[in-house]
Amino acid sequence: MNHSVMTPPTRVTRLDGIPDGKHPLDALLAPRSIAVIGTSEISEDVDRAVLRNLIDQSYSGNVYAVASRGAGIFDLRSYPRVDDVPEPIDLALIIAPAAQVPELVGQCVDVGVRVAIITSSGSRETGRAVAELEREILAEAGRGQIRLLGPKSFGVMNPFLGLNATPASLMAQPGNIAFLSQSGAVCGAVLDWSLHEKIGISALVSLGKMIDIGWGDLIGYLGDDPRTRSIIIHMESIHDPHSFLWAARAVASTKPIIVLKSGGAGESPEADAVLDCAFRRCGVLRVRRLSHLFAMAEVLAKQPRPRGPRLMIVTNGGGPGVLASDALLEDGGVLATPSPETLAALDDELPRCWSHGNPFDLLEDAGPERFARVVERVAADPNADGLLVILSPQPMTDPTQTADRLRRISYPEGKPILASWMGGADVLAGEDLLSRAGIGTFRNPDSASRAFCYLWRYSENLRTLGEATAMPSTDDEQTRPPDLEAVAVIARDARRSGRTSLNEIESLRLLSAYGLPTVPTFAAASAEEAVRWAQAIGTSVALKPLTDPDTPRAVAHVSRRDLDEAEAVSRAFAALEELMRRKAGPDHFRGVIVQPMIDLDGFKLFAGSHTDPLFGPVVLFGFGGRLTEVFKDRAYALPPLTPTLARRMMERTRIYRALTGNHGRETVDPRTLEWFLVRLSRLVIEQPWIKQIDINPVLASHDRLLALNARVVVWGPDVPESLRPRPVLSADAPHQPSPAWLA
Amino acid sequence: MNHSVMTPPTRVTRLDGIPDGKHPLDALLAPRSIAVIGTSEISEDVDRAVLRNLIDQSYSGNVYAVASRGAGIFDLRSYPRVDDVPEPIDLALIIAPAAQVPELVGQCVDVGVRVAIITSSGSRETGRAVAELEREILAEAGRGQIRLLGPKSFGVMNPFLGLNATPASLMAQPGNIAFLSQSGAVCGAVLDWSLHEKIGISALVSLGKMIDIGWGDLIGYLGDDPRTRSIIIHMESIHDPHSFLWAARAVASTKPIIVLKSGGAGESPEADAVLDCAFRRCGVLRVRRLSHLFAMAEVLAKQPRPRGPRLMIVTNGGGPGVLASDALLEDGGVLATPSPETLAALDDELPRCWSHGNPFDLLEDAGPERFARVVERVAADPNADGLLVILSPQPMTDPTQTADRLRRISYPEGKPILASWMGGADVLAGEDLLSRAGIGTFRNPDSASRAFCYLWRYSENLRTLGEATAMPSTDDEQTRPPDLEAVAVIARDARRSGRTSLNEIESLRLLSAYGLPTVPTFAAASAEEAVRWAQAIGTSVALKPLTDPDTPRAVAHVSRRDLDEAEAVSRAFAALEELMRRKAGPDHFRGVIVQPMIDLDGFKLFAGSHTDPLFGPVVLFGFGGRLTEVFKDRAYALPPLTPTLARRMMERTRIYRALTGNHGRETVDPRTLEWFLVRLSRLVIEQPWIKQIDINPVLASHDRLLALNARVVVWGPDVPESLRPRPVLSADAPHQPSPAWLA
Repeated sequence: MNHSVMTPPTRVTRLDGIPDGKHPLDALLAPRSIAVIGTSEISEDVDRAVLRNLIDQSYSGNVYAVASRGAGIFDLRSYPRVDDVPEPIDLALIIAPAAQVPELVGQCVDVGVRVAIITSSGSRETGRAVAELEREILAEAGRGQIRLLGPKSFGVMNPFLGLNATPASLMAQPGNIAFLSQSGAVCGAVLDWSLHEKIGISALVSLGKMIDIGWGDLIGYLGDDPRTRSIIIHMESIHDPHSFLWAARAVASTKPIIVLKSGGAGESPEADAVLDCAFRRCGVLRVRRLSHLFAMAEVLAKQPRPRGPRLMIVTNGGGPGVLASDALLEDGGVLATPSPETLAALDDELPRCWSHGNPFDLLEDAGPERFARVVERVAADPNADGLLVILSPQPMTDPTQTADRLRRISYPEGKPILASWMGGADVLAGEDLLSRAGIGTFRNPDSASRAFCYLWRYSENLRTLGEATAMPSTDDEQTRPPDLEAVAVIARDARRSGRTSLNEIESLRLLSAYGLPTVPTFAAASAEEAVRWAQAIGTSVALKPLTDPDTPRAVAHVSRRDLDEAEAVSRAFAALEELMRRKAGPDHFRGVIVQPMIDLDGFKLFAGSHTDPLFGPVVLFGFGGRLTEVFKDRAYALPPLTPTLARRMMERTRIYRALTGNHGRETVDPRTLEWFLVRLSRLVIEQPWIKQIDINPVLASHDRLLALNARVVVWGPDVPESLRPRPVLSADAPHQPSPAWLA
Repeated sequence: MNHSVMTPPTRVTRLDGIPDGKHPLDALLAPRSIAVIGTSEISEDVDRAVLRNLIDQSYSGNVYAVASRGAGIFDLRSYPRVDDVPEPIDLALIIAPAAQVPELVGQCVDVGVRVAIITSSGSRETGRAVAELEREILAEAGRGQIRLLGPKSFGVMNPFLGLNATPASLMAQPGNIAFLSQSGAVCGAVLDWSLHEKIGISALVSLGKMIDIGWGDLIGYLGDDPRTRSIIIHMESIHDPHSFLWAARAVASTKPIIVLKSGGAGESPEADAVLDCAFRRCGVLRVRRLSHLFAMAEVLAKQPRPRGPRLMIVTNGGGPGVLASDALLEDGGVLATPSPETLAALDDELPRCWSHGNPFDLLEDAGPERFARVVERVAADPNADGLLVILSPQPMTDPTQTADRLRRISYPEGKPILASWMGGADVLAGEDLLSRAGIGTFRNPDSASRAFCYLWRYSENLRTLGEATAMPSTDDEQTRPPDLEAVAVIARDARRSGRTSLNEIESLRLLSAYGLPTVPTFAAASAEEAVRWAQAIGTSVALKPLTDPDTPRAVAHVSRRDLDEAEAVSRAFAALEELMRRKAGPDHFRGVIVQPMIDLDGFKLFAGSHTDPLFGPVVLFGFGGRLTEVFKDRAYALPPLTPTLARRMMERTRIYRALTGNHGRETVDPRTLEWFLVRLSRLVIEQPWIKQIDINPVLASHDRLLALNARVVVWGPDVPESLRPRPVLSADAPHQPSPAWLA
C-alpha cells in the first residue's frame, strides 16, 4: 500500500525553497520517500512513536513499514524486506535491534537507499560487540553510496516539511535555527525548550555516534539551506576536526555557528585551548553554558549582529541599569555616548532629574508613552550599535502596554534591540509581545548585556578573520626561502640514527635554516677545536657538553661560562669531559658546544609547536624562562600563520602587552616577532616529521630577537598516519612538504 | 480615628516569634503603630498605593494618616501633625516631597517616633540641594534617638506581619529569605520573581541612600530574627565597610549571606579584589550574576549546605550528564565515587548497559520507578555530599510522575538534593512538584552543578574561617616584639622633614625593626666610610646613590656592582658622586648605600601594603621582579594576618604553587613566608602613619628569604581622619598603635 499523508498540509509551505534532492543529504532532511525498517521488532513505545509521527504528522512523502514478520502496523501494510517496497527509497529509518543493523544496511545498499538513520544505541551489547557491529555496518555501507546517520541517533526533524523522524511526539515550529547534537536527550530538551520559548527551527538533527555523517557534512549542507539562518551545535566530540573546520570556515561568515562543547572536563587545558583557537580560526562562536546557547540561538534568530560594541541602555530603574552596564563592561562592551542631539531632545521630553546619560534612567514613574518616545529616539542615535530596554516592575509601570508600544516602533536596520522585562507573572504578557515582535528578551538585564557582547564578539571575530588570512606578498628578506638542504641533512641524520629528538646544535640549526635568529652555536670534539671556535667568536664564550636525551639530568645543564682566554677554554673543555665521563659514564662524552656569552637583558619568551592529537601541529607563543610553566601565559594558533594572525595570537598573552607597552624598558618591535612566528609556522607545516619544538628562551629586546635554546622532538617510525601531511587552513601560505623527510 | 485592619488575618501567625520590640529596628520591621506622613501631598498613585497597602492588607497594627491639609483619605481621618496622633508611633513613613522632609523628621523626633522611612528620592532637586537636604535631615535626627531608612527607600515588607510599607500592590509570601537592596527597582523585580517562583520572604528592605540605617544594622538585626534563614543582598555601594564586616562576620557562620555587588565596573580591579577579600574574610558568598543570586537564594532556602564537594548525578541521558559533570569539575566540585555496595545494588536493578558509574545514566527508557529506586539508593551512599537528578524529555519519560515519586523519598539529612527537569511545557508540573517538596530545581543541568559548587565553596569558606582566626601562641623568635624605638626614630625623622616617603635605607630598617629579613644596608657619606662598610661586610659589595623621590629617574637606578677591593669602592663612590652632581644637580648627592652583592638565584616575590579608600590597610603578596605589573599575580588580605590566613592568601597566587611545587628548583618553606607576612601585617596595623609599602623583590629560595629593596610611602599631614587608627578584624592579634606616630 502506497501510503499518503493522513493529515492535510497546514501551516507549512511544502517543498517550497527546499533543495532539489541532488545533494546527498537532501535524502536525510528532505526525503521524498521513507522506509521504517524493523517495525516487527517494535515492542517498545519509542519505536511505535517514530512511525506514528511520520504518518500522523504533516509529512507529504511516502512512508513504508518494513518488517520481517507481522502483517502491518497502524494503517500500513508491512513489507518483509526493503527490496519489496514498490518505489525508490530516499531515507531508511532503521529501528531494529543493533544485531540486525548490518544486514539491514546491506539490504538498503542493494536497493539504492540514499541515507539510513540508525537509532539503535547498541546499548544492550558490550563495548567490544558494539565496535564489531560498527565495523560490519561500515563494511556493508562501503559496498555502495549510502550515507549513515548514527548509530544512537534520536533522528531528524524538518518542520518545513512536517517531517518528524524522531520519537518525540511534538513537532518543532518552522523557523531559522538549525540545531545539531550528538545527544538525543539534549535534542529532546532543546525541542521542548524551542516550543516553550516559541523559537522556530529549520532542522533538528541528532548525530549519535557519527560513524559516517558528521559535523562537516551537516554544516556544509545547512550552509546552503535557505531556511537556515544560524546553526546551533551541542558537541560532545569533534571526531573529524578537519571536516568540521573546513565546513565551518566556509559557512560561518554568512551564517552564525554557535557551539557548546561539552565533555571538556576530561581533557587537558591545552587540548581545550587548541579547540578554542580552532573555533576562533574558523569564525565559530563558542559558548560555555547551555543557557548561553539557548539565549544566543534566540537572539541570533531574531536580531542582526551589531556593527560595533556600543550599547545604549534605557531603563526605568537605576539599579537594573547598573547591573546591565557592569556586565556590558566586564564582557568587553562599551557604554555608547549619546549624541548631543539625542541628549538635547531627551532633556526636553523627560523630567528634569533624568540620568542625562547612558544608561538612560527614565525614572520610576515612566509609563508606556515615555518609554516609547525615548526608545524611538535612542534607537535612532548613530552613536549606538545596539539597544537594551529594561523594565522593572514599579508601581506606575505597565509592562504589557509598554511592550505593546515598543513593538510598534520602526527600528533602524542592522541594530540589535534587546529587552529585559524584570519580575514575575506581571511581565509575562509583555515579554511575549516583545518576543513575537522579534525582540530578544532576557529575564535578567545582565544576561542581556552579555548576549550583546557575544553578538559583538562574533561580529568582530568574523571581521578579524577577513583581514587576517592574506599573506603579504613581499620578496624581501622576510620571505627568503628556507635552506632545505640543511634541513634534509638534519632529518636524515636523526632518522638514520633512530633518534626521537635532535640535540641542541641540530635544533638551533633547524630553526636557523628557516630564518629564525639563533645564538651562534658550534660543536667542538676537542679542546683545540673549542679554542678555535672561541677565537672565531671573538668575545667571552660559554662551553656546554653536547647532550642527548640519555644524558643524566644532573649533568645535562652543566656549563662553563665567561671564558675569555684560550687557556680558560681548554681548561673548561677538560673539566667538562672529566665531569661527563665521571657522572654520565665513560662513553657519554661527545664533545661540547661553544657559544658566545649573551647579555640576558630583555624579555624571556617561549615559542614552539606541539602536535595536537586532533588538530595536528599547533604553534605556541608566550612567557618564557624558568617560570613558563607557572604562569602558562601562552597562546595557541593553528598554522599556517600570516603576520596578522601571529599578532592576534600574541595579543592574547599578557607578556605581549609588556613587550609593547612601557614597563621601564624599551619596547620590542612586534613585526620582528610576527615574522619569527610566521617562519616557525612554515617550518612546522613543511616538516611533518617534527613532533614538538620548544624554544625557551627567545630573548627579545628593542634591538634583537634571539633563540637561545631549542629542543626538537621528532616522530619515530611509529608516527600516526593521521598526523603526517595534512590539509592546512589557508591556500596562501606555502605548504608543500619538503623532501627532507622523504630523502 | 483609630484604624484597625480591614482584612482579617489569614495565612500568617501574627507576632508569633517576632522580636519583643526592644531592638531599635523592631520599629522598622515589626512596628506596632505607623504614621504615614505627607498624605495631603499624595497626588501620585505611588503614594496612595503605600497607604492603601498598609490598610488593605493584613497588617494588624494601627495606621494613621498625617497631612498638613486635607480632611482624610480612604477611611482614615487625617491628623495635621504627627504630634496630634493619639498614640506613640513606632514607624513613620514620610512620603512628602523632599523639601518638607527635614521639618517632618524634626516633628517625628519631638514625639519620639523610633524609625522613619524616607521615600522621597529628592530627584526633583539638584545634586547640591539634595546634599543640603540630607545634612538638614541628619541634623534634625541628631536631636533624638530616631533611626532613618532612606532617602529614596522603596520601603519595607514583613510578610509574617502582613506589613507592606511599599507601593508594590502584591505582598510577598512568608518564608525564610531576607532580601536587601538599595534599589527600589531591584526590590520590585525580586518581589515579583519570588511570587512567581514561590520563594518565601522573611523581610524585604530597600535601603535607598543609606544616610543612617545601613548594611551592618540590618544584617545584625536579621541575624537575630528567627524567621530569617538566609540574607540575600544586592549592593551598589558598601558605604560603611566596617559596620558591614563586623555584622556579616558575626552572622555568616549561622546564616548564609549572599551578595551581588554591582557598580563595580567603575572601580579599579584592585578595589574589586579588596572587596572580594573582605567578603571572603567575613564568610560572605559573593556571586557575579543576578541569576546566581536568585538561584542561590532558592537553593539555600530549601536545602542544607554540603559537607564536602562530592556530587552524584543521576540522569536519563548521557549528554545532560556530561554537561553537569563538566560544570561541576570546572567550578571545583568532585564527581563522587559510588561505594561498591551502591554499584552492586544498581547492577542488579538496572539494564546491563547502564553507565556503571557516576553520572548514573539510567538510559533513555527510564520511567518513574527506575528513577525512584536509583535515587533513593544513591542518595543514601555515604560517598556523596549531594545529589543532582536530571530528567531530559525522552519518549518514555514521564516528568510529572517521576517528580511525584522523587518527592516521596525520604532523603538523608544534611545532603542537598538538586534537580534539573529539562525541556519546556511538559516539565513544568514536575518542576513545580519538586520545588514545593523543597528540592532545588534548575532549568539547565550545568546551572545546577554550579549552584552545588557555590554551596560547597560557601561551606568551605566558613570552615576555613573557623580554623584561620586564632594566632598560634608561641614565645619564640617568630613573635619577638618589634624594635619600636628604631621605628619611632624613622617616623620622627620623616615627619620632621615633611617627607612623604622614606628613603631606601629607612625603608629597609623599618622592615627590619619588625623582624623582616632584609639585605644588610649601610649609608656612607664619604668614600672612606663606604670602604669601611665594604670591609665590614667582607664580600663583594654594590654601591648605589642614596635617592629620594626628587631624584631624576635617569640616575635613580644607577649602581656600581661587584666591587671587591677598597680602591674599587673608592672609585665607585667618586664616580657616583660625580654622576649625581652632573645629572641631578650640585646639591643632590647625599652619599651612597653599601650592600653586599647577593646571588639572585631564587624566586623574586612581591610583598607590601596599600591603603584602600574604604577598607584601610591591605596586605599584598605575589610574583615580584620587573614583570610584577605584567602578570599581576597577587593576592590581597585584610590585616591582621595569622599564619593560616597568610597561607590562604598565598595559595591564591600562581607563584605560590611554583614556590612549593617542583619546577626544577628546591622548594621554599611556606612557614618562613607565612611569618614574613604576619609580621608585615603587624607593622601595617601598628604603624598607621604608613600609607604604602612595596617590597620588590623579596628573594626566596630553599635556604633564605630576604627583602632586597623596599619603598615606604607615609601619610603627610593631610592623612584622612578615617584612615588613622581603625578597628581590626581579630582580637587575637596585637593592634595597639605604637607610640611612634604620636612621638
